[in-house]
Amino acid sequence: MKQLLRLIFLIPCFAFTQVNAAKYVCPPCNHPCDSTTYDQPGVCAHCGMTLVEKNQQIVKDQKITVCFYLYDGVEVLDFAGPMEVFSYAGFKVITVAKTKAPLMSQGILKIIPDYSIKDAPQTDIFAVFGGSDDVAANDPEVISWIRSRDGATKNYFSVCTGAFILGKAGLLDQLTVTTFHKSITNLQNAVPKAKVLQNVRYVDNGRIITTAGISAGIDGALHLVAKLKGKEVAEAVAKQIEYDKYIPEQGMNLSPQH
Amino acid sequence: MKQLLRLIFLIPCFAFTQVNAAKYVCPPCNHPCDSTTYDQPGVCAHCGMTLVEKNQQIVKDQKITVCFYLYDGVEVLDFAGPMEVFSYAGFKVITVAKTKAPLMSQGILKIIPDYSIKDAPQTDIFAVFGGSDDVAANDPEVISWIRSRDGATKNYFSVCTGAFILGKAGLLDQLTVTTFHKSITNLQNAVPKAKVLQNVRYVDNGRIITTAGISAGIDGALHLVAKLKGKEVAEAVAKQIEYDKYIPEQGMNLSPQH
Repeated sequence: MKQLLRLIFLIPCFAFTQVNAAKYVCPPCNHPCDSTTYDQPGVCAHCGMTLVEKNQQIVKDQKITVCFYLYDGVEVLDFAGPMEVFSYAGFKVITVAKTKAPLMSQGILKIIPDYSIKDAPQTDIFAVFGGSDDVAANDPEVISWIRSRDGATKNYFSVCTGAFILGKAGLLDQLTVTTFHKSITNLQNAVPKAKVLQNVRYVDNGRIITTAGISAGIDGALHLVAKLKGKEVAEAVAKQIEYDKYIPEQGMNLSPQH
Repeated sequence: MKQLLRLIFLIPCFAFTQVNAAKYVCPPCNHPCDSTTYDQPGVCAHCGMTLVEKNQQIVKDQKITVCFYLYDGVEVLDFAGPMEVFSYAGFKVITVAKTKAPLMSQGILKIIPDYSIKDAPQTDIFAVFGGSDDVAANDPEVISWIRSRDGATKNYFSVCTGAFILGKAGLLDQLTVTTFHKSITNLQNAVPKAKVLQNVRYVDNGRIITTAGISAGIDGALHLVAKLKGKEVAEAVAKQIEYDKYIPEQGMNLSPQH
């Protein structure tokens, strides 16, 4: 009886200990440390991000998803800059191509996409990039697939001549947009119903963001992070990736919510 | 006899016409337009680079070669920034990993390397990048392979925590170097014979260039292009990739030739 009473007395103490044994994790960063748990708050020894309580992180794990549509001849920095930014912002990035066959980026980097257009899941954001963009823009099957996802796509994001692909899908009509500095006139001709601007780092129309060429994708991606997760998160990502040259709100924001 | 004389007279004219039928090509940029020939000077319709005479290009085709050593967990922007820069500067980039098995960059991008350490050709420049750098730095076989190439390697180039790999290969002793901003102390402890600086975009020791974290690889790569091919080429590449934020000579140049 005495032992039973002791046990009854101990149960709440044990339960209390369990509740208070907070565990800490880094915000999701797509590095192996995503699965590391720490007993104390502080910074992650691997990625250097400030740790958060594990329970908080579970809520944050409802990640924003992004489809990176890739193709033979896609420009490497066009997609890698935003991939780095979205990764540190905790977005879940998937790569998709027309088929799952390996493709070459810039004639150098051989990539195996995660999905083809036959089995790619829907994502919150659809992102396209420049390079040999006509490989995608002139492929009716790809354009039709992009259109078929439109209802569930919350945001579009293009870097450089990736804008030609969105234009071909009819997404840029009536919008103010931008592209690679040497393709301004070509895009204006291709999408006469859009207003194509030069000398702007990115243009945010609310649902659709288009950026200038190649490295401008980094700025556009940071802008999208600021828009969806807050300025502080974008600034933390810029600091993490040592993009000291980040100038918040450097582009043109025509977003109705702005 | 009259006809023979006419023929003799015409031969040099014909030869002269041939010599002057100049063809124009874009500087090598690893895009499909590398094989396009134009009859007139101007700019390449695809990549927008200023055309050069084909004969000049043949001389330039003796390309500087770069080995991009990749591994599971390599940071995507670390290597993609320099890959973009070197590509437009006309360097020939190859990717090498320990084996030819696909590897994951940042847990997102699946890459098939061109070569393994068993069959990779020698290159002028050896480049390493950050991320899960201990995968390479703690692999004696990889470190031994890097050392075995040392005699024929003209330049080393590290981005971010890629410096740990060069350090493990004994290449940073007695040098002033840099790395990812959160790894300054760790690198100093790992390579006590080096002087590890913070708050510097890159450090050029002549043969070995180390850069700060992630996006700083773009600046370091542009510096290496300026060093090997001239400031004008680096500025043209920065303009092409719309890296308007490029500040020439932003890093620390300790190169003896400087």
